Amino acid sequence: MSDVSNQAKPQIYLDHAATTPVDPIVLERMIPYFGSTFGNPSSWHGYGRAALHAVDAARDKIASLIGAKPAEIYFTSCGTESDNWALRGAVRQSNKPVKHIVTTAIEHPAILDTCSDLEKQGVEVTYVGVDNSGIVSVDAIKEAIKSNTAIVSVMTANNEIGSIQPIAEIGDYCRDEGIYFHTDAVQAAESENLNVNDLNVDMLSLSAHKFHGPKGIGILYIRSGVKLGRIITGGHQERGQRAGTTNTPLIVGMAEALAIAVEKREEYVMRISKLRDYFIDRALSEVPYSRLNGGRIKRLPNNANLSFEYIEGESLLMMLDNKGIAVSSGSACASGSLEPSHVILALKVPPEIAHGSVRFSLGRDTKKEEIDYVIDALKASVERLRVISPLFNVEKGTGHYV
Amino acid sequence: MSDVSNQAKPQIYLDHAATTPVDPIVLERMIPYFGSTFGNPSSWHGYGRAALHAVDAARDKIASLIGAKPAEIYFTSCGTESDNWALRGAVRQSNKPVKHIVTTAIEHPAILDTCSDLEKQGVEVTYVGVDNSGIVSVDAIKEAIKSNTAIVSVMTANNEIGSIQPIAEIGDYCRDEGIYFHTDAVQAAESENLNVNDLNVDMLSLSAHKFHGPKGIGILYIRSGVKLGRIITGGHQERGQRAGTTNTPLIVGMAEALAIAVEKREEYVMRISKLRDYFIDRALSEVPYSRLNGGRIKRLPNNANLSFEYIEGESLLMMLDNKGIAVSSGSACASGSLEPSHVILALKVPPEIAHGSVRFSLGRDTKKEEIDYVIDALKASVERLRVISPLFNVEKGTGHYV
Repeated sequence: MSDVSNQAKPQIYLDHAATTPVDPIVLERMIPYFGSTFGNPSSWHGYGRAALHAVDAARDKIASLIGAKPAEIYFTSCGTESDNWALRGAVRQSNKPVKHIVTTAIEHPAILDTCSDLEKQGVEVTYVGVDNSGIVSVDAIKEAIKSNTAIVSVMTANNEIGSIQPIAEIGDYCRDEGIYFHTDAVQAAESENLNVNDLNVDMLSLSAHKFHGPKGIGILYIRSGVKLGRIITGGHQERGQRAGTTNTPLIVGMAEALAIAVEKREEYVMRISKLRDYFIDRALSEVPYSRLNGGRIKRLPNNANLSFEYIEGESLLMMLDNKGIAVSSGSACASGSLEPSHVILALKVPPEIAHGSVRFSLGRDTKKEEIDYVIDALKASVERLRVISPLFNVEKGTGHYV
Repeated sequence: MSDVSNQAKPQIYLDHAATTPVDPIVLERMIPYFGSTFGNPSSWHGYGRAALHAVDAARDKIASLIGAKPAEIYFTSCGTESDNWALRGAVRQSNKPVKHIVTTAIEHPAILDTCSDLEKQGVEVTYVGVDNSGIVSVDAIKEAIKSNTAIVSVMTANNEIGSIQPIAEIGDYCRDEGIYFHTDAVQAAESENLNVNDLNVDMLSLSAHKFHGPKGIGILYIRSGVKLGRIITGGHQERGQRAGTTNTPLIVGMAEALAIAVEKREEYVMRISKLRDYFIDRALSEVPYSRLNGGRIKRLPNNANLSFEYIEGESLLMMLDNKGIAVSSGSACASGSLEPSHVILALKVPPEIAHGSVRFSLGRDTKKEEIDYVIDALKASVERLRVISPLFNVEKGTGHYV
């Protein structure tokens, strides 16, 4: 935001869970690989070798940042592709006559829609529920596992309510049972420890644009020894496992963005969780009939998901947008849908309240005066929407008639 | 190339079929969408709408450049993904008990490796051969079609020898028969007419980095009414057909690059085909025992694929690389393989000669003095390699003993 006291409408972006701007340092690092060091990393000549050298360095850097070996890092076009690969690849690799997947009810559409697509092909899927904090229980995952389970997939942190799942414990159990375990860590990169050994995961998905890297590049970490079917076939790229011309500039950018995220992590978590708590505390105390979706602990430090009774999330979103504030209802990936969020419903929030939920996701550069402006805007917008809400006025006896 | 008369090693890039540098104008157009107009096009707020507006404009531009409707343009992560989608999607959609694909023996690995993967899943594939110019016959395609054919896929132009296929005629027949017809036009964008109505295609793959756009973005054109299964599932992007965050900067870049390519096409084809012919004529007349792979007509204007008897393509490639010249043997996507090219073998070139084939692919900025330098380097390198070739010296009785 430039200056909230300005006459001009401020620009306050609180939708970092949807996407983040590319860090200027990241962009600067990428630029030479578009027009100068542009060779195809698969080419044998000098142009190709120079590009390959940059890709190798980026792969090494990313591997060391998540405790992996370089040969365990596979570049994909996005987190969604990584999630598809993990599930479809594990199912294809399984030799059971009927294959089974265990996942949770609150996964990103990249997992849930893929499971639903696989169900149409005869795959069985168990969707494990969560408690009212949005956390899955390790015991419930254990109980869901069957002899034909090809893969367990549980997100590191939820994209709508930020709930952080017990990945290390689930991974520990899966390893003992010899079952593949995947985590969609797309929302977790900026604040959480992504060390694949601490997390006990066999596969992990990341997407650069969620941590100030470019859109269009992700990774799937695949632990050595894990066998996955391929989903995109063709040339020999990524050790024969993911075809398509290697994307030097975006890979270089992703490595730089991840390095910055890891370097800034401690300071970021400290500062942003305080600011987020300040926001939640003020919102809950100053906006009547508001509630926090999900728990306050085991929650991403930048996430606040609030419901405001008697109003529609979409209406509030548009009023805030008019005041220059960008927030989201549900996830960007599910926008266009008028159904209440599957994540909020999984918390056993009644549908009419789920409809009034809004996600505020703070970012690295979010400032306190922006939060203050948002609180003021929120109070005014909610009040205005309730003035025109018949149900609110009947139930709360405000005397307003519409 | 800076200056061939310089003492410093020149840098001559003749591998434009592998990849091209991003045009500076294209890069300039992309930059604002990384850090400024960075919103997720699926988001409802102002940041999202601004990004969506740019994506919509790019989609409109691309559609009009290939004679399609905007709703027929689907953005993918690359040409390989587009090819996978066309084949896997058509197979999945088919209701025949055993599905059949017709393609050619000289397709890109994105098609051939995908066909081979589908064969493992029980799909039948017919690989139609080509004549010694590298052209497939329309009649041979007709004969290969069966009652269970789910899709016919024939590339617009070959990536190794540049042979241009009779797409419009094949498409005409497929349409009459009610069979889906796909073309991989990845190599053709800079010089060929890509109007999908002139070409009679139902699906067409493009990849931006082959025409001075960025790596990591492609399209699959899908004609209205064509039903394809999805290969990457998740969010609602691309009208529910290709999940994954929409890549604003790369899409904007691709549209700009295609517009430039189409605008420059006529001038490019005229200039570069003359320069290429000059190169071929000099090479064939000045380098003994050399031959052109593929015919001279119906050939991409920038492609020259030559075999030099008694030498290995890889050795020549490395010697030229030492002189600052970047060329390729086979395709970059197949590099690492020591097998002779499947394309050159399909021309009925004997394997020992196929081994000595090198692809020179000129680009928009290639200059005559670069070609002159390459011819000199080629003559010297071939001569030097033959001095140490036992077979050459025995067969040709040069008197050299090694």
